[in-house]
Amino acid sequence: MTTKLEQLKARLAEIHNLHGAIAVLGWDQQTNMPPAGTRARAEQLATLSGIAHEMLISKETGDLLAAAEDEGADLDYDGEDAALLRMARRDYDLATKVPTDLVTEFRRTTAQAHEVWANARAQNDYPSFAPWLEKIVKLNIQIAEHLGYEDRIYDALLDQYEPGMKTAQVGAIFDDLKGELVPLVREVLARAERVDDAVLHGDFDVARQRAFGEEVIRAFGYDFERGRQDQAVHPFTTSFSRDDVRITTRFDPHWLSPALFGTLHESGHAMYEQGVAEGLEGNILQDGASLGVHESQSRLWENIVGRSRGFWKHYFPRLQELFPDQLGGVDLESFYRAINKVSPSLIRVEADELTYNLHIMLRFELENALLEGDLSVDGAPATWNDKMEELLGIRPPDDAQGILQDVHWSGGSIGYFPTYSLGNLLSARLYEKAVADVRDIPAQIEAGEFGGLLGWMRENVHRHGRKYMPAELIERATGEPLQARSYMNYLRAKYGEIYEL
Amino acid sequence: MTTKLEQLKARLAEIHNLHGAIAVLGWDQQTNMPPAGTRARAEQLATLSGIAHEMLISKETGDLLAAAEDEGADLDYDGEDAALLRMARRDYDLATKVPTDLVTEFRRTTAQAHEVWANARAQNDYPSFAPWLEKIVKLNIQIAEHLGYEDRIYDALLDQYEPGMKTAQVGAIFDDLKGELVPLVREVLARAERVDDAVLHGDFDVARQRAFGEEVIRAFGYDFERGRQDQAVHPFTTSFSRDDVRITTRFDPHWLSPALFGTLHESGHAMYEQGVAEGLEGNILQDGASLGVHESQSRLWENIVGRSRGFWKHYFPRLQELFPDQLGGVDLESFYRAINKVSPSLIRVEADELTYNLHIMLRFELENALLEGDLSVDGAPATWNDKMEELLGIRPPDDAQGILQDVHWSGGSIGYFPTYSLGNLLSARLYEKAVADVRDIPAQIEAGEFGGLLGWMRENVHRHGRKYMPAELIERATGEPLQARSYMNYLRAKYGEIYEL
Repeated sequence: MTTKLEQLKARLAEIHNLHGAIAVLGWDQQTNMPPAGTRARAEQLATLSGIAHEMLISKETGDLLAAAEDEGADLDYDGEDAALLRMARRDYDLATKVPTDLVTEFRRTTAQAHEVWANARAQNDYPSFAPWLEKIVKLNIQIAEHLGYEDRIYDALLDQYEPGMKTAQVGAIFDDLKGELVPLVREVLARAERVDDAVLHGDFDVARQRAFGEEVIRAFGYDFERGRQDQAVHPFTTSFSRDDVRITTRFDPHWLSPALFGTLHESGHAMYEQGVAEGLEGNILQDGASLGVHESQSRLWENIVGRSRGFWKHYFPRLQELFPDQLGGVDLESFYRAINKVSPSLIRVEADELTYNLHIMLRFELENALLEGDLSVDGAPATWNDKMEELLGIRPPDDAQGILQDVHWSGGSIGYFPTYSLGNLLSARLYEKAVADVRDIPAQIEAGEFGGLLGWMRENVHRHGRKYMPAELIERATGEPLQARSYMNYLRAKYGEIYEL
Repeated sequence: MTTKLEQLKARLAEIHNLHGAIAVLGWDQQTNMPPAGTRARAEQLATLSGIAHEMLISKETGDLLAAAEDEGADLDYDGEDAALLRMARRDYDLATKVPTDLVTEFRRTTAQAHEVWANARAQNDYPSFAPWLEKIVKLNIQIAEHLGYEDRIYDALLDQYEPGMKTAQVGAIFDDLKGELVPLVREVLARAERVDDAVLHGDFDVARQRAFGEEVIRAFGYDFERGRQDQAVHPFTTSFSRDDVRITTRFDPHWLSPALFGTLHESGHAMYEQGVAEGLEGNILQDGASLGVHESQSRLWENIVGRSRGFWKHYFPRLQELFPDQLGGVDLESFYRAINKVSPSLIRVEADELTYNLHIMLRFELENALLEGDLSVDGAPATWNDKMEELLGIRPPDDAQGILQDVHWSGGSIGYFPTYSLGNLLSARLYEKAVADVRDIPAQIEAGEFGGLLGWMRENVHRHGRKYMPAELIERATGEPLQARSYMNYLRAKYGEIYEL
């Protein structure tokens, strides 16, 4: 006789395996698939996703879940079984609350909207995309009504990406940040000429770029025995199990930064997935806690480690060895300043550490205004441009470089953007706490050793996988709720020094 | 209102998509996956296979099929819909006739037996594998009883790999072949020293080997826009749709033959899959007609074209250009003889064109004797060795090089081997007929042009996919049932000349 919990686990494991297969198909599509394979791949993915969704929302799953919850009422809160029941309940409710018709309409709309958006951006033609954005906003509102919320429509949407996080919390954190960040950015930009990043541009042999990136992330602790690196147009990390976590990178032969910092970034995501406790393998807890927590790991290794002076004290000589003609005559300090140059950019994905969060705040404000009817879809481009000017001091010359720049809305994702900023803030707080606990982490990094930092993350973040909601994980790891102070301290110290404020 | 046929098609398309996904996961496993990924991959594959099987044998599929058959009683026999109903009936019956318990036991047994076999071969320890072979033979007999047969147990098993083919037919064809082949082999081997293949061994740069192979198969007509080539330990071809058909190859830096002829071989399989009519894409007719028909295509391009004098008249100068030190001083005739050297080998996969089928006959006779109780599992190794001596004039020094050499039995496949020989025979017959219809095919090949041959195969074999049973396809394409005469004529002419008989 198997228990209901065991039966539930077996069923969820099957759904999990389907998602693993979906991830393999997605990885292949972006790394290897000949373009002609697109049509059949879309069919395969649709079939697998459909089956996984049907299995999750089925009466059988619902009944098993309810019975397993009864059975497991006395389980230890911190145990894996209790956590599994909590997360299974969350997944099941999220998947069943929205009627299938609405899910279907949402999918159909966003599938078409994606192409409309791509054309609109290419043609700088916002009006052609506007009716689709209008529809996507409306569908998101309907979805939010089904999911339910107490305070703001946005709460229900944000919760899909950052479980449990509320709009009011994000708003409060962003207000804190904004009050200090905007003046700091202004001060730095007034001294923009103090930093030159020309040394990052030149001819950089791709094989050597790759060798360096792999050497670094191997030292970080990314396990190539349980992963691999491939090339993709839009770099990403994907995981088929904790023992098969793959990263992708894109190389620019004339610019060092994209592949280098991209690889460090993806390795952070990947080490998180590789670090989930072995006991969570093969079931729904094997994931990360949220997009925000995931982003904290990628930004940690990309920025807090990868753009630090200590890290380059160790690695710059090695990079110079690989690129003697390009970097042999550059001193460490110039290189450190170059990789931390601040310059206000119209495009979020090109933004530096300091200005990045301003891009997110803009979207957060716009998304809320659109959902609550305070802003019309037609009026959105002008508001976008005004806010860019207010926050960053620059105005997009056209909508392609303004409101049309990101793919997210066309894919239906409203409520996603804040996770990027939450990840940034959390990366600084986690690092601060790790150093408080393990004092010689900075010295280790200067020696090219990362075991102290990775070990702390493994213990306090990675191994828990998706056992806890993000807020609980963060409180357990840092002793307090997420706040903006640590990140602001980090930015002020770092950029204050670089720009001699 | 959708018809039952449309509903059936939609359901079969989902099953087909699951198999496409399974193929992607299998390809990835053999080309890219880090070894640590094995455990999760096995789970993913088990889930997908299980769901596909459940969907096929479900009452819903059975009911839809029966209703669609009623609806489609008057469909044109040659139309796609009628063919789809015939093949769906075949698949459904095959999948439902064997009880699930037996399928499960068979899978569990063969999963374990594979590892036992691998160890037994490594240790030259047949007795450790014997009980497993005993069990596999028994399970195959049980499966055959459920599948049903009129004449021989073997009929039911063979039918799984070569639909509709009967043991008696294979036996008659093999008897024809054997009567002429064994004396021919003896004559050739008496003059073995007339051919030397030393020129194929040496240092052959892998990148150049690859470039040459790709140049040739591109000229054959393998479409790299709808496929790609990767490396794998055990080369194979796999298809996720007619527009995504991938081949794999293994390179030996010191021996030209494996990658070269391996690539040509796999390209034959792949061009078959790429040549299926577009209208069959996305459903169960998209496959090849059988393993034997598939093998006819791979052997055609590997041997009948790829080991012909005409082909090398065009391509040998190009190969010499790529390997001037190794082949610059070799004349065409010596090279042609080298790639066609006959030497009796203990190992099937290393066998030349002439002796290959003798290996298959041996297995065919043994399999039948095991199934019908004329041979015990314990007595099988001695019989194997005796037959090797009788057919090929050599005796294996141990079981590792004898009865333990092939993976098939450990995987449960009894009845599979004949498809290799049927493919060889068919390749010669199809070529003969193609040349009768398109007279200048040989001249085209000498000019490095393959459109005539590929065009004939496209028209008479490829485009039909799995619409017809193999016997019907062969009769339509060649005007007669499969026979051994064409292949023997081909061998006698070719090797008679090479060995000056």
